[in-house]
Order: sequence, then C-alpha cells, then structure tokens
Amino acid sequence: MARWEPDARGRMTRAALDLYAEQGFEQTTTAQIAERAGVTERTYFRHFADKREVLFDGSHELEALVARTIADAADDVAPLDAAGAAFVRVAGELEDRRDFAARRAAVVAATPRLRERELLKLAALRDDAAAALRDRGVPDPAASMVAEVGVAAFKVGFEAWIASGQARPVADEVRDALTVLRAQAEV
Amino acid sequence: MARWEPDARGRMTRAALDLYAEQGFEQTTTAQIAERAGVTERTYFRHFADKREVLFDGSHELEALVARTIADAADDVAPLDAAGAAFVRVAGELEDRRDFAARRAAVVAATPRLRERELLKLAALRDDAAAALRDRGVPDPAASMVAEVGVAAFKVGFEAWIASGQARPVADEVRDALTVLRAQAEV
Repeated sequence: MARWEPDARGRMTRAALDLYAEQGFEQTTTAQIAERAGVTERTYFRHFADKREVLFDGSHELEALVARTIADAADDVAPLDAAGAAFVRVAGELEDRRDFAARRAAVVAATPRLRERELLKLAALRDDAAAALRDRGVPDPAASMVAEVGVAAFKVGFEAWIASGQARPVADEVRDALTVLRAQAEV
Repeated sequence: MARWEPDARGRMTRAALDLYAEQGFEQTTTAQIAERAGVTERTYFRHFADKREVLFDGSHELEALVARTIADAADDVAPLDAAGAAFVRVAGELEDRRDFAARRAAVVAATPRLRERELLKLAALRDDAAAALRDRGVPDPAASMVAEVGVAAFKVGFEAWIASGQARPVADEVRDALTVLRAQAEV
C-alpha cells in the first residue's frame, strides 16, 4: 500500500459496510464508497476488483492461517483436532472485530450476492484445510470430510455467536459445535 | 407446464448445458438457449429467471426430499443416521442422470457464477435438513452440525463419484464419506 494512503483499505471497507447497511448493497456504487472513504474511484479499483470484494479483504490471510495451523500441529494430533484448532483460531481473529463482524454478518445475510460470495470464501477455506490435511498424510475422503466439519463448526459457531448477541467468545462457540458433532457421531 | 410444450423444461436445460459446455456460460445468451430448445425467449423466462437457474431445476424437489426423509425416519433413529439417509437418497436421484450429472459438474466447476449458485443450493439443503431435525426435537447446535455433515457427505461423495468416472454408485460414495467421518470423530 502506498505511504500517502494510511489505512485506505480499512477506510474503504468501513465506508462500504456503512453504505450497504444504510442504503443496501445493490443501491451502492463504487463511486459512493470511494467518496465516503476519501479516495478516488481509481484507487478503489486498485485495491478491490468490484463491489463485493471490499467485504472479503483478509480472506487470503485466513486461508493461510488455516493451512499453517494444520501444518504446524504435532504429528500425533488427530486430523479432526488439527482442523478444529485451525478453525477455532480463525474464529479467534474475529473476536477483536466484534462490532464489524456483527454488522457485516447482517449485511451479508440480507444480500444474496454477498451470501454467495461468503459461501465461496468458506469453500476456499475448506479446500485449503483439506490440502493441508492431505499434506499430513490424511487420505481422501477423510481429509475432505474433516475439512468440511471444521468449516461447518466455524459457520455454526459464528452463527451462534451472532444470534446470541456475541454473549460468549466465538472460539468457544466453535469448540462447542465440534464437541456436539463428536457426540452425535458416536450415537 | 402447458400441454403444448412437452418437456420444454428438459429441452431448455439440455440446450443450456450443451451451450455452456460448447462455448462457455458467459458467452451464452438466453436467446441462444431458447432457440436451440425450440422455444421463444419469452417461454424461457416463463420457466427460468435467468441464465443460471436453468441448471438448478429440481432443487426444490431435492430440498423437499431431504426434509421428508428426515421427517419420516422412525423416532428412534439417531439424528446423523436420519440426515445421512436423506442425503444418500438425494444422491440416489442422480444415479439415473449419470451423464447429465457429470457434464453439469464439469460446467459448474469451470464457471465461478455457477459454483456460487451451487453452494447456495447446498446451503438451502442444509437449512432444510437442520429445520427437519429441529422438528424432531434435535436442539442447536447439534441440528445445524448434523445437517452440515449430511451436506458435506453429499458433496464429498458426489465429488468422489465424478472424480472416479462414476465407477461405483454415488449413494455408496456418500455412505463411505459418512462412515469415514464417524471414524475420524472417534479418534
């Protein structure tokens, strides 16, 4: 990022979320986002490909975090424990951005095109987790299924966190989802 | 459907898939699909809202099948068994349309906008399964997690079926995915 644009990405992200919440995603233009963030539209497009991507900044970092956490787990850690720890850690990243996460979740839930993009983000997280598990020697379909369950716990835990007004840490909600699934798998 | 248009929906669906495979989704227009199917564009839009929906005909029937199968399971059937049976049954519906399913999967995988729509379809299946489980008295987050695992087994089993050249019945692939996940959950 250029030195003369301190936190331009962050300003654009917050401006976009504000506008989507105020007037709706479809009604908002990139020109409006740029104006509110105090940048030119050209600058906007240097950072984000379109109107959706501005709400998915940092997705690649989360994917890298999932892959790295799984890769770094000790050799004797079971696949579901490694994947579970990775998604608990990803969830933990959201705890520092509670308000943003809750407002973003509301906008995404209300906007079909953002919901689709969110599902694509989760599918990418699943693919990265499955690849990291395969690198640990976990064969398919186990690697894919364990990665799916990790993402599922993240989704379900995140939804519970939002629905409950963020009463407990989101990492705890994700852990609970995994624990509950293990119990169901044993029935 | 009108009497004077025998299998118009089927013709449109096949025409769309052929065109998407031949020249790509983005390059295909609804006018071209209508022409190849021997209907007017107006007829096309009477059946499908846009260029994507034509490849998602029958999604509501699959959602209903999932919900019904879970609802019809005997009271003493465990949640994961009820959900598993529902998604094995949905998979079974694809066995009669092997060639179509394989060609459709290739087009969806190659087209980001269709991938997003496919993920939305799976999310709807998950929501219906979770609601059906809640109706059986399964609380959250268990209902959501079990529904997620059912969809995950469907996805992973379907992918294995396609990747293997449809060597074994897709229902068996879905069953295997569930069995493998249960084993992982016990580790």
